[in-house]
Amino acid sequence: MVTAIVLVKAERMRVNDVAAELAEIEGISEVYSVGGRYDLVVMIRVRSNEAMADVVTNHMLKVDGIIETETMPAFRTQSRHDLETMFSIGMDE
Amino acid sequence: MVTAIVLVKAERMRVNDVAAELAEIEGISEVYSVGGRYDLVVMIRVRSNEAMADVVTNHMLKVDGIIETETMPAFRTQSRHDLETMFSIGMDE
Amino acid sequence: MVTAIVLVKAERMRVNDVAAELAEIEGISEVYSVGGRYDLVVMIRVRSNEAMADVVTNHMLKVDGIIETETMPAFRTQSRHDLETMFSIGMDE
Amino acid sequence: MVTAIVLVKAERMRVNDVAAELAEIEGISEVYSVGGRYDLVVMIRVRSNEAMADVVTNHMLKVDGIIETETMPAFRTQSRHDLETMFSIGMDE
Amino acid sequence: MVTAIVLVKAERMRVNDVAAELAEIEGISEVYSVGGRYDLVVMIRVRSNEAMADVVTNHMLKVDGIIETETMPAFRTQSRHDLETMFSIGMDE
Amino acid sequence: MVTAIVLVKAERMRVNDVAAELAEIEGISEVYSVGGRYDLVVMIRVRSNEAMADVVTNHMLKVDGIIETETMPAFRTQSRHDLETMFSIGMDE
Amino acid sequence: MVTAIVLVKAERMRVNDVAAELAEIEGISEVYSVGGRYDLVVMIRVRSNEAMADVVTNHMLKVDGIIETETMPAFRTQSRHDLETMFSIGMDE
Amino acid sequence: MVTAIVLVKAERMRVNDVAAELAEIEGISEVYSVGGRYDLVVMIRVRSNEAMADVVTNHMLKVDGIIETETMPAFRTQSRHDLETMFSIGMDE
Amino acid sequence: MVTAIVLVKAERMRVNDVAAELAEIEGISEVYSVGGRYDLVVMIRVRSNEAMADVVTNHMLKVDGIIETETMPAFRTQSRHDLETMFSIGMDE
Amino acid sequence: MVTAIVLVKAERMRVNDVAAELAEIEGISEVYSVGGRYDLVVMIRVRSNEAMADVVTNHMLKVDGIIETETMPAFRTQSRHDLETMFSIGMDE
Repeated sequence: MVTAIVLVKAERMRVNDVAAELAEIEGISEVYSVGGRYDLVVMIRVRSNEAMADVVTNHMLKVDGIIETETMPAFRTQSRHDLETMFSIGMDE
Repeated sequence: MVTAIVLVKAERMRVNDVAAELAEIEGISEVYSVGGRYDLVVMIRVRSNEAMADVVTNHMLKVDGIIETETMPAFRTQSRHDLETMFSIGMDE
Repeated sequence: MVTAIVLVKAERMRVNDVAAELAEIEGISEVYSVGGRYDLVVMIRVRSNEAMADVVTNHMLKVDGIIETETMPAFRTQSRHDLETMFSIGMDE
Repeated sequence: MVTAIVLVKAERMRVNDVAAELAEIEGISEVYSVGGRYDLVVMIRVRSNEAMADVVTNHMLKVDGIIETETMPAFRTQSRHDLETMFSIGMDE
Repeated sequence: MVTAIVLVKAERMRVNDVAAELAEIEGISEVYSVGGRYDLVVMIRVRSNEAMADVVTNHMLKVDGIIETETMPAFRTQSRHDLETMFSIGMDE
Repeated sequence: MVTAIVLVKAERMRVNDVAAELAEIEGISEVYSVGGRYDLVVMIRVRSNEAMADVVTNHMLKVDGIIETETMPAFRTQSRHDLETMFSIGMDE
Repeated sequence: MVTAIVLVKAERMRVNDVAAELAEIEGISEVYSVGGRYDLVVMIRVRSNEAMADVVTNHMLKVDGIIETETMPAFRTQSRHDLETMFSIGMDE
Repeated sequence: MVTAIVLVKAERMRVNDVAAELAEIEGISEVYSVGGRYDLVVMIRVRSNEAMADVVTNHMLKVDGIIETETMPAFRTQSRHDLETMFSIGMDE
Repeated sequence: MVTAIVLVKAERMRVNDVAAELAEIEGISEVYSVGGRYDLVVMIRVRSNEAMADVVTNHMLKVDGIIETETMPAFRTQSRHDLETMFSIGMDE
Repeated sequence: MVTAIVLVKAERMRVNDVAAELAEIEGISEVYSVGGRYDLVVMIRVRSNEAMADVVTNHMLKVDGIIETETMPAFRTQSRHDLETMFSIGMDE
């Protein structure tokens, strides 16, 4: 599994819509509405680098109302949970 | 479930140790080693505000080698997965 | 009681209106007009995480003239005053 | 009543001690442990400019473990509560 | 005397007009055109906190062409001059 | 008269000493202890560019406990007061 | 060979077009679509300072949709590859 | 000679025009097109503080396409060249 | 091929040594000494995500004298050169 | 002539020494002590890219007391003076 965390600043009036639209994109597993300097934190969990590139450089760029994103690729993951199995449910089709 | 995302900068020589120690803290479900301006992204998923306060103001403060943290509480979560169920496995004891 | 402090930058011409509108939102207990890099400091004091999410992701987003907010959740509070009692007056209905 | 909000960054290992020591200073009514870019938010509520200057330039400077502070004087306050009365309890001696 | 120093960024084409308008506001004793990251430095010297609040949250907000201000209240002043006397000339009416 | 405003950050424990030492330097007419991102604002009012260079690159550099300064030369001054006369008292010897 | 690395921020909706247009400019050998605070990283590899100036101050300035660039000239290059030979293929006409 | 260095950010499409217009202003001796975070570096070399104020607060403010400037007055100059003589050629009329 | 660009700040006295040591790491194809806000730009070109993680979280962390890094993964690459072939020479053993 | 402007931050106590040492380096034509966010502005004027690399990556790195530099290469120069001739005096040996 290839994972990336994306910090998102969105236009105030469109924050909730942006969150909803992002959550619809295949490969985006979670969208968190947060306080602090960013508005949303997005988790991308996909099967390949190609799928990651597709989410980041195609699908996310088309969501209207995003002002700025900062994408952080996860090089290693440590967890007490078997994330690979947990998040692959429904990834197959 | 109460969720927070924490951005962490750590001392270069201690990054991997810090990641390992954080992953041991109860309530921290995932630690991602990332590129970009931060070194680690930490997911805290706990049952109550008290547990969250405990992780953030007690346990995390004791990990040596952390330079700076920025904690972002998640006010809302949108996901195609049932995160509540997925991450509550093993939360009971 | 769940507490958060919000730092607000507003459009210069609308600062006083924004302050007045924010002060009307249920759950916002105080609005301070400040100097420095921010224009307003807002105290949110509510009964639950759900109420907090409601103030932050619904009501505050609708106030026109806000440029930027930074929300800081309070994990612990230390005070010589019994804030819980003081601010819960009028919280009941 | 003269009010100021102070944003505080403290040394990680000393955050909780700093919070406790600040809460002891006369004129500081509340100390909040927060997430985000700052560690503590301090509310100063005193009777006069002289008392404010005393808290900021004498007492707070002596607390060990503070790295940086940003003091924001409140020029105006809007609240559904009678803060003047609420916080003046115990201010008299 | 209550004193504050205000750092001002203004629209390039309006800098000189903004300076002139600010200098007209009662309570503003000096306006300096400076280089560096700010365009103007404004000295406010008034008799009371109420007058200060009036200058900062009413009069200055109405000057068109100001992009950003950062207000720094002076808690203490050290000077070889008797500023109190020097600047109070003409303050009486 | 040649005027410059200097924003100063000082070591917390030495702020008051730094203010006192700066106020002793000939050519420095006022030292303000401020809140906000800076600790002190210093007004330099001298008779010539040479005197200004002397204050900035000789005398101020020798004050121990200053972390950072930002010097803003005033290109023009607008004031309802006759600053030239007011501040030149005592400048002669 | 004269080399420079350029960090580029582009308008979200135009990022892919900007990348394509930059890749067409003679002297630009590679355009990388990246995450993080920047959108694109551009490698310029040319034969002379004049060619470099031409790329940076003429051709790149004409690409529509670029918000900000930061050009870093390479003073020295260390590589296990013979970059000079590798990238000069096709540089001749 | 009074010297100042000005860092300039300009609108991308107008950078070359801005450079040409600045170079025409009397008192501006050199305009450098640079990479990095700024677009232009301007050297002002004039005979008096009044001439400097005139360049900075009158002439430069009228050049269209400048977004931001940061003016750094030179308090002292060290050079193996006799800059005073070199740059005064043609300063006389 | 998996590619990442890393911006590096290093201790002044150790910049050249850091560059030399980085150039020795397998998977790092080029190290550029640059001006601007960073000291070095490093190109990592490897065969797999695992190799990338190895370079970033193991080998690079061990180089002494690095203060800060910012790693930008390349999601897409556009080039008039066949980078894949050019840089794979010598990648086989 | 190859030109670069370098912005320098130096340790407060060593600023004047750093300026003197920089002025001794061959290829550095002027060192300006400035106010603002930087301490020194350095002009490098040399005959070739190799000489520039030598000044920046060898000689300047050895000056003790420099905290940070930002080097901006000049791609184009516009001046009413014949800088090439003026600064080449004494460049010959």
